[in-house]
Amino acid sequence: MGAKETVEITGHLMDSGILSRILDDIRDYGGDYVIEQFDVGHEAQDPSSARIAIEAADEGALQRLLMRLQTRGVNQVALGDAAVASADRDGVLPDGFYSTTNLETQVRLDGTWHEVENPEMDCGLVVSSSAEGAPRVRTVPMSDVRAGMRIVVGASGIRVSVPSADSAADPFAQLPSDSSERPQAVLVRQVADTMRQVRAAGKRLLWVAGPGVVHTGATPAMVALIRAGFVDALFAGNALATHDIESALYGTSLGIDMNMGQGVEHGHEHHVRALNTIRKAGSIRHAVADGTLTSGIMHALVTEERPYVLVGSVRDDGPLPDVHTDVIEGQRAMRAQLHDVGYCLMMATQLHSVATGNILPASVPLVCVDINPSTVTKLADRGTSQGRGIVTDVGLFLEQLALELVPDHRRY
Amino acid sequence: MGAKETVEITGHLMDSGILSRILDDIRDYGGDYVIEQFDVGHEAQDPSSARIAIEAADEGALQRLLMRLQTRGVNQVALGDAAVASADRDGVLPDGFYSTTNLETQVRLDGTWHEVENPEMDCGLVVSSSAEGAPRVRTVPMSDVRAGMRIVVGASGIRVSVPSADSAADPFAQLPSDSSERPQAVLVRQVADTMRQVRAAGKRLLWVAGPGVVHTGATPAMVALIRAGFVDALFAGNALATHDIESALYGTSLGIDMNMGQGVEHGHEHHVRALNTIRKAGSIRHAVADGTLTSGIMHALVTEERPYVLVGSVRDDGPLPDVHTDVIEGQRAMRAQLHDVGYCLMMATQLHSVATGNILPASVPLVCVDINPSTVTKLADRGTSQGRGIVTDVGLFLEQLALELVPDHRRY
Amino acid sequence: MGAKETVEITGHLMDSGILSRILDDIRDYGGDYVIEQFDVGHEAQDPSSARIAIEAADEGALQRLLMRLQTRGVNQVALGDAAVASADRDGVLPDGFYSTTNLETQVRLDGTWHEVENPEMDCGLVVSSSAEGAPRVRTVPMSDVRAGMRIVVGASGIRVSVPSADSAADPFAQLPSDSSERPQAVLVRQVADTMRQVRAAGKRLLWVAGPGVVHTGATPAMVALIRAGFVDALFAGNALATHDIESALYGTSLGIDMNMGQGVEHGHEHHVRALNTIRKAGSIRHAVADGTLTSGIMHALVTEERPYVLVGSVRDDGPLPDVHTDVIEGQRAMRAQLHDVGYCLMMATQLHSVATGNILPASVPLVCVDINPSTVTKLADRGTSQGRGIVTDVGLFLEQLALELVPDHRRY
Amino acid sequence: MGAKETVEITGHLMDSGILSRILDDIRDYGGDYVIEQFDVGHEAQDPSSARIAIEAADEGALQRLLMRLQTRGVNQVALGDAAVASADRDGVLPDGFYSTTNLETQVRLDGTWHEVENPEMDCGLVVSSSAEGAPRVRTVPMSDVRAGMRIVVGASGIRVSVPSADSAADPFAQLPSDSSERPQAVLVRQVADTMRQVRAAGKRLLWVAGPGVVHTGATPAMVALIRAGFVDALFAGNALATHDIESALYGTSLGIDMNMGQGVEHGHEHHVRALNTIRKAGSIRHAVADGTLTSGIMHALVTEERPYVLVGSVRDDGPLPDVHTDVIEGQRAMRAQLHDVGYCLMMATQLHSVATGNILPASVPLVCVDINPSTVTKLADRGTSQGRGIVTDVGLFLEQLALELVPDHRRY
Repeated sequence: MGAKETVEITGHLMDSGILSRILDDIRDYGGDYVIEQFDVGHEAQDPSSARIAIEAADEGALQRLLMRLQTRGVNQVALGDAAVASADRDGVLPDGFYSTTNLETQVRLDGTWHEVENPEMDCGLVVSSSAEGAPRVRTVPMSDVRAGMRIVVGASGIRVSVPSADSAADPFAQLPSDSSERPQAVLVRQVADTMRQVRAAGKRLLWVAGPGVVHTGATPAMVALIRAGFVDALFAGNALATHDIESALYGTSLGIDMNMGQGVEHGHEHHVRALNTIRKAGSIRHAVADGTLTSGIMHALVTEERPYVLVGSVRDDGPLPDVHTDVIEGQRAMRAQLHDVGYCLMMATQLHSVATGNILPASVPLVCVDINPSTVTKLADRGTSQGRGIVTDVGLFLEQLALELVPDHRRY
Repeated sequence: MGAKETVEITGHLMDSGILSRILDDIRDYGGDYVIEQFDVGHEAQDPSSARIAIEAADEGALQRLLMRLQTRGVNQVALGDAAVASADRDGVLPDGFYSTTNLETQVRLDGTWHEVENPEMDCGLVVSSSAEGAPRVRTVPMSDVRAGMRIVVGASGIRVSVPSADSAADPFAQLPSDSSERPQAVLVRQVADTMRQVRAAGKRLLWVAGPGVVHTGATPAMVALIRAGFVDALFAGNALATHDIESALYGTSLGIDMNMGQGVEHGHEHHVRALNTIRKAGSIRHAVADGTLTSGIMHALVTEERPYVLVGSVRDDGPLPDVHTDVIEGQRAMRAQLHDVGYCLMMATQLHSVATGNILPASVPLVCVDINPSTVTKLADRGTSQGRGIVTDVGLFLEQLALELVPDHRRY
Repeated sequence: MGAKETVEITGHLMDSGILSRILDDIRDYGGDYVIEQFDVGHEAQDPSSARIAIEAADEGALQRLLMRLQTRGVNQVALGDAAVASADRDGVLPDGFYSTTNLETQVRLDGTWHEVENPEMDCGLVVSSSAEGAPRVRTVPMSDVRAGMRIVVGASGIRVSVPSADSAADPFAQLPSDSSERPQAVLVRQVADTMRQVRAAGKRLLWVAGPGVVHTGATPAMVALIRAGFVDALFAGNALATHDIESALYGTSLGIDMNMGQGVEHGHEHHVRALNTIRKAGSIRHAVADGTLTSGIMHALVTEERPYVLVGSVRDDGPLPDVHTDVIEGQRAMRAQLHDVGYCLMMATQLHSVATGNILPASVPLVCVDINPSTVTKLADRGTSQGRGIVTDVGLFLEQLALELVPDHRRY
Repeated sequence: MGAKETVEITGHLMDSGILSRILDDIRDYGGDYVIEQFDVGHEAQDPSSARIAIEAADEGALQRLLMRLQTRGVNQVALGDAAVASADRDGVLPDGFYSTTNLETQVRLDGTWHEVENPEMDCGLVVSSSAEGAPRVRTVPMSDVRAGMRIVVGASGIRVSVPSADSAADPFAQLPSDSSERPQAVLVRQVADTMRQVRAAGKRLLWVAGPGVVHTGATPAMVALIRAGFVDALFAGNALATHDIESALYGTSLGIDMNMGQGVEHGHEHHVRALNTIRKAGSIRHAVADGTLTSGIMHALVTEERPYVLVGSVRDDGPLPDVHTDVIEGQRAMRAQLHDVGYCLMMATQLHSVATGNILPASVPLVCVDINPSTVTKLADRGTSQGRGIVTDVGLFLEQLALELVPDHRRY
């Protein structure tokens, strides 16, 4: 082995099992290590810190291992300046590009640290100049790279910060990730409390929802939450919006939808007809404006002027005119809604929840509610980020949440 | 092929897909058939009827096919008297014994039809005489057979009746069996309505519950339902009662249980200590009487004088002194509580729900609530019987059910 | 009620439970019915037929109910000509458009029946003229409608044919849809036999696969099947191709992927680097040509000149340059590969399997293999179509399938 | 807070995340702590050790916390002698009894350490004298306590040892517990290698199996493994044995069983008749001896003279005469088969796998194979013990395992 580096990490290393994951990573990348120093807090609430000497086969392997470790919050001790290279072509990062984490990140250029403006994982870091000539560093997804962009390469000169595990701020701090056998009523209240706090702090509440919200009969609860100001933006797919609109347009068809579940989405003419109706109107907003659409979740979002981003998938039919059929365009539209988000609520959709988790900074706490434990596990288990999962029925959960936050919600 | 017989069936044959199952059965048993007559009701609500000529390889195969078909409600056209043979030894039925269904059944002896007193599937039929010398026919499980008992053999002289699909009486008549994507609030109300009707009709409400009821925080809701008279008997295992009692005894330990779920039942000293405490008291009733146990589900059952049957399993430790460690004894204790049951509610336990389903007559409607779809499918799909399933969170479901039936329940 | 129509259906009505579904549909759409005639075959293998008088609230409701019933194979008795209307605008079907099934369909124009060229469900039917001036009818998805197209409206003049339930051709005819507890080795052999028959008949084998194929170690089996000519086209997403290429490029990283499963797709730098490498090469084909990519599933497809269609989703990063980022474009590319498909094998992906199921004619038998029962249920339960499901481990299944079809496959 | 104690633990504390669980336990029991010393190995393979000062509200709470921590391998630093008290009555442990772990345990009496003969969790420790007058300590389940037994109370004078994480001995050391997306063929080979090693070391192979083994068609594979000497004992329930025997007795009925799965166990006359047949023979062994039973798993066990323990459950009917209907008696019969077990293979049964896991020492490695992830998680996640899980199809897994261990197995 030739290439070496010394790294350090500070935090609640043992409580969180993070050190165990770090050592696994080193082994998985074929590296070796010596723990040079380990300081453990004496009291329960003290943070601990470790300094670890790492060795890898060659410089390339070492740099990639260092990037991997930064996803855990591990920084190099000796931090020089970051290296930068130019992108040769559109859509392609330079060789050896720094692959980002979703943690708060700083980049050292000319001896000065610069905050990355919009942390997002699996991106490159592009260095540019502000109007005043000051250096700016922001993440760029691979597909948005343009030739000539100056991109950070290697892992030097970069440091990340793990969100402080402030248990007061995290209502679930004491709870393990799988919660199918925990007192659900308590969880509902904790989510409601966090929502109130986030709103009081002037932050936005981002929702991600699947068609199960409609199928389980939670439409009235969702409408109440929207009207009462607890939904600042909604990410979803064609299915949620189509089922919601179909229920609104074909009162008599409601029973069918409800009885049959998602499996009959196709081969069932009501939903195609609902799609055609909105396509004819031109958009959901137009359908509200011209009186075609008069109730439901999408109607509430339009009338309350809350933004929504609908992104298509290969299984859609129609789709609704509001749907981004290009998924990369859809991701861009989602990124444009992430500003000031203080809490993210993911309801009964694996596809859109994972997509949102991919672009969300680790500093935004999230809660994932699904009756399927595997969806919850995927979202809640995101390393250093603040994801929590609740395995329960989304219909009953939203009903209880609305009772908690909008006690008179049944009049909506 | 040699042995032949003609059978008939009447009912909503096409609505229910029952005819398809009958023809499958004939094929599976290696038989052949000709549909001799098929009368279909003209109007939607008319019953239809079919007459089918069946052929099998030999008389033994035919008799067994006829018994199989009776589980679907199919009777022979030419009904002579039933044949009877004596049991040679304890615990063993005579060769060719009639294997029962859970349908209402009549047996013809000396030209007269006699109602089977306690329909239960997979049993024998024992013929005896009443005090007045009149013939009586009742089911007998294999392990309760005693030498000398007179047991019905073959399928002659027996007819069964399928419960009338009276959709007014069946709140779920319009719903398919898997309901994870149906409006849950509607389902809660329908279950509540059925409970009120059954109670008003003077019938008993039988509950079957697993430890998930405690883990999901539904103890207050269950206690409220017990106190308000909506639980006439409870079937459960050692786990439900132990977790309930542990929560009642170790207030501070509640959090642990709740956080960890069933997986830590073992290796967790609180529950062993709770078991020892009740064993020391002698029984749950004694622990209530001597002031050791002062709250929870088991306490409510004791103080409200509602019977419970706890049956052990191989994974138990302890167990509680009230638990039947012999499963056959446990089944007998369960059977003793089936009289006048008008509705059976199964909550979050596959083992005890299947066990109860095994001994319950088809005429008793049941609802199975579980977050695990496979449990619900197993219970709800019981051929001609009136099983319905709800895939949801049992904690939130019971909370909503208690709100519906006992609006002021939070004061309990 | 005002509007009435008489319909008929022929087939194995009772075996399949189809009549039960038809009567449910009529009720769900608020209609009423009288069964006017019911002819049942005397022998087991005879088809039966029914004639049903249907009534609905008004003409619009009736037409929609008739379209719904056609998804079950139910046709009108009195078949006039089909009505046609012009599309006013791009992407919008005329009011009252006929919503297609995936069954073989004929349309009557000027007293003559015309076969629909490419059955697909949830589409419109567009009438045009061939080069010789003869009428042609084909399906058109909503988004491909162009102003001026002549589109069929209403349900008159249209008849559909249910695939004949030729049990000799259907290896699973005796098996229910959920197969988690059936002899798996038998199922593997049956799938292999069907593949051989389909190939012998000159038909194509279409595969749909998710990243689980790579994660479960089935890459060598898949490569063997491709090289031996058992894969004529592959539909997948960005994830399958990226994981396959990542494994091929980073031999040492294989362990990581395998250990961690899909959950770590993001936040793991190897896969971003693999994406960037292929983007730099320009395409997967270029990466094979320039020697960058030398093994794996995608490499085998390229070198064996088998077409693949990769369609993106909102959770992708990268994506690979070969991926259709516009899902509607992706659907078009998939449709272009449906010609002469005789069998469709769906492996471990719900998203792409449902998407393929949406565009596949009912006449193409399909098998869906997944460890998740809900995916299998969704695909296998497609009404009149020939879908079958196998709940099993896709890695072991493909290994056994390769052993069956390519006995010396380990040398690939 | 008043009561204090200092504890220590040595091992791979950070790799395993065990320290994090310890600190969670202290909090959950309402205690407090100061980490007094933490020595971390410098090299990757070095063990680390920690010394922690613990405080609890009172002596009782402290003792219980100490017992809880011993399940993690945490011992007291200052180890005096163990305290002993007499049991007052049968079936009841004295107050404050020491609740055991499943780790290797030593008890100090009169200044000398004595090994606990049969580690098992959730038991008491009974002190007696050997024939030579030397003290003996062994575990006693609550229900086997007899008045007058001398039982250890409190946590003093007891130390436990965590199994050394010898990765050479543990084929799965590098694998996380959930393996649904790992290369299954590799896992099969690793299980086979462990079986060969255990047998070579003169240890016994214990199997636990559910009826899914029969339903998935794995009977021939199981029979081959039994005949080749890879099954030293089998634990199961009434269902596995009944389904196996039914298949052996009713060749023609095999198809039914296979098609329908466990759901039709009841209401299906073949299995009741199989039960009656064996009851008539007197036992499975008698049925083999008299020529009634001539093939299948139970037949192979009898003819190869391998012991089996069948324990009943409340859902059984029959049951077979060999079944322990008293679950406590059943547990005793299982314990009698644990001697010299070197490896435990659990196949497709949650009930019997959990029951076996409860009585197995932590030093016996186990593997749990099930298509249901929740069963696997429950068994594999047993704190310090060596449980590993494989989420896969048990039928294909056993077929591959038999191919690996008994290459010519198809001739059996």
